[in-house]
Amino acid sequence: MTKKNAFYAQSGGVTAVINASACGVIETARKNSDKMGTVYAGRNGIIGALTEDLIDTSLESDDNIAALRYTPSGGFGSCRFKLKSLEDNKLEYERLIEVFKAHDIGYFFYNGGGDSADTCHKVSQLSEKMGFPIQAVHIPKTVDNDLPITDNCPGFGSVAKYIAVSTLEASFDVRSMAKTSTKIFVIEVMGRHAGWIAAAGGLVEDQGIPVVILFPEVEFDQDKFLAKVDVKVKEFGFCTIVVSEGVHWPDGRFLAEQGTRDSFGHAQLGGAAPVVANIIKDALGYKFHWAVADYLQRAARHLSSKSDVEQAYALGKAGVEFALEGANAIMPTVDRISSSPYEWKIGQAPLAEVANVEKMMPLDFITEDGFGITDKCKEYLLPLIEGEDYPPYENGLPKYVVLDNTSVEKKLPEFEL
Amino acid sequence: MTKKNAFYAQSGGVTAVINASACGVIETARKNSDKMGTVYAGRNGIIGALTEDLIDTSLESDDNIAALRYTPSGGFGSCRFKLKSLEDNKLEYERLIEVFKAHDIGYFFYNGGGDSADTCHKVSQLSEKMGFPIQAVHIPKTVDNDLPITDNCPGFGSVAKYIAVSTLEASFDVRSMAKTSTKIFVIEVMGRHAGWIAAAGGLVEDQGIPVVILFPEVEFDQDKFLAKVDVKVKEFGFCTIVVSEGVHWPDGRFLAEQGTRDSFGHAQLGGAAPVVANIIKDALGYKFHWAVADYLQRAARHLSSKSDVEQAYALGKAGVEFALEGANAIMPTVDRISSSPYEWKIGQAPLAEVANVEKMMPLDFITEDGFGITDKCKEYLLPLIEGEDYPPYENGLPKYVVLDNTSVEKKLPEFEL
Repeated sequence: MTKKNAFYAQSGGVTAVINASACGVIETARKNSDKMGTVYAGRNGIIGALTEDLIDTSLESDDNIAALRYTPSGGFGSCRFKLKSLEDNKLEYERLIEVFKAHDIGYFFYNGGGDSADTCHKVSQLSEKMGFPIQAVHIPKTVDNDLPITDNCPGFGSVAKYIAVSTLEASFDVRSMAKTSTKIFVIEVMGRHAGWIAAAGGLVEDQGIPVVILFPEVEFDQDKFLAKVDVKVKEFGFCTIVVSEGVHWPDGRFLAEQGTRDSFGHAQLGGAAPVVANIIKDALGYKFHWAVADYLQRAARHLSSKSDVEQAYALGKAGVEFALEGANAIMPTVDRISSSPYEWKIGQAPLAEVANVEKMMPLDFITEDGFGITDKCKEYLLPLIEGEDYPPYENGLPKYVVLDNTSVEKKLPEFEL
Repeated sequence: MTKKNAFYAQSGGVTAVINASACGVIETARKNSDKMGTVYAGRNGIIGALTEDLIDTSLESDDNIAALRYTPSGGFGSCRFKLKSLEDNKLEYERLIEVFKAHDIGYFFYNGGGDSADTCHKVSQLSEKMGFPIQAVHIPKTVDNDLPITDNCPGFGSVAKYIAVSTLEASFDVRSMAKTSTKIFVIEVMGRHAGWIAAAGGLVEDQGIPVVILFPEVEFDQDKFLAKVDVKVKEFGFCTIVVSEGVHWPDGRFLAEQGTRDSFGHAQLGGAAPVVANIIKDALGYKFHWAVADYLQRAARHLSSKSDVEQAYALGKAGVEFALEGANAIMPTVDRISSSPYEWKIGQAPLAEVANVEKMMPLDFITEDGFGITDKCKEYLLPLIEGEDYPPYENGLPKYVVLDNTSVEKKLPEFEL
């Protein structure tokens, strides 16, 4: 058996730990260099494959690859680009095959979320449908935590930890000030469809913090919400609100899209947090502060959870090991054995069952009033934020790695995207 | 000599390390219990003194007091309340004297920023002007870093570290995505008058990150700004913008106040970050993301700088020691001996020279084009973000302390604020 090279690419929004998965893939491939050739990374994701813009990871030092474990973002660049179906754009698949052939690539590792699982699934069918032998393995990654079958998705645990810690700290701050000043703190978090990240804010309740959560799964009921907030302020003196960017009115409009215009008549992009804060101010008169965490939350490697980092690495490693055992069209998964103590093992799921399935928050994770999380949800979330895994620092800043990312010489004519 | 009790209060916006100063005050008082009596803390700052709402810190365990060192926010509550001058509101000063007399208080430790230094200065004059013997010592604290004489203000170094690390991480994120998606990231930071916090974002430049800073000290020049951003995007593929909340147009209006109205006609409170992001989008068409850090930045004890924590503690400790040596109307200061390696010692400044003086960024800390920081500024800032000082964690969250805060029995009639 001649050994084949591998292709690895990062896809979609990056996270604090997607590079830890890359580290798992590359280090495991290096350990199995008798069976697997060079790992070529796509520069900026799948676009790198289509344009034959490949990075030779074998030219990176072991130290640089090891440093990926604690470096946030996508070390090789990512992209938002979804392959059409084989029927709708055969040209792209033919081009992929050309590139894979030219560089003797037999393994395709795609590191991403739901859309990427779909792309990976399509690539996995190239063997059968177009007669090109390739093994495609999807390495899960998404802060949205919405991939099915796996216990959770790498990237989510770290965002959850960041949001829980930030909510705790800001709430302590507001509690100090509430007597004469700010009584309301609103933090906006990611999650357009699923409220997993917002749910993490509820973990601070057990430390005596009054939290009201606005989930995208629950239609925004202004009167009920205001009543809830007012009760908390009257009881605790202050209240923290965690609002998901995807929260919407009963008619489907996002809170963040208030139809506001600036003085030039331009549509004003807002954010849900200031809208919620102003609703409270107008109705109840409480002084507020608000924050929008945006990329800070998903990039916050300085506060990653240890279990998240370990799982991200383990899933990358497992992806290579499964491929070497002959697997195709699969995704390694985290299978939870127990929550307390947290025990898990690596499993695998067929991509056909992963692609295009979105895992929403179970209904019994949200309290009946729609503004909080249940004990069952806490039991699920707590293990995912467990442990700290600090990056090394130099001169007060994390010492993240920037790879050399040396290009592989092109062998093919250019390809128009 | 009969030993006198002490009063300690936290004032103004709290920080990640103001409790470390409280810890320094109380632990040092306990070590000198032969010379100093009980430390009474004002519940919610000076309001606690006026309303005789005192906390008996002697009832807190040594462990609880030690835990203040790593707990953000104001453990005794803070307030925004400025005493008028002795001439304008003699009643308040007479009340303070009554309360101090009733509880045998001879030391007044006030932990705050510029306004609090002024209040502390007024209290220090009670001895002379109203014949009541009290020693008033101001412990510096403010994320704004705008107190004079001291090298820096506790609270600032930790915010600076948080903003530098967050800017670094988000910039890594954007760089990964820039090929097909987000090219602009805007982070809004605190600082209404002085750009100290915004300046900290510039520290990531040396890691190859293109940063454009908008300081409150520099009038916003839209054309010059857009040209600068465009050059960076063309060179690096992306650009990060750090915008101070205090940035304003040449006519003095804050960028954050765009006169926008929501669909109900309510004035919409914005934030400078979305305004800046939209200006770029409209003119240059680049896709953007933005974040508003707000309280997250000043409460982020999980990422405090070690030098900041050490200085906060040392200044609290020095306050008590100076008081025991007989000092009145002073503020302990950090005096820088050298920047590299960072060496400093504790000094002291007369409150008369501190009160009502605002330390702005020196002009030679801002680059000529107004959008960056100079090497001199970096040399000043870097030592302040040096070192990490992580809090302990339990179940994935920092184990911050909530004090018992037992009230001292009141001896006086009520006082109307």
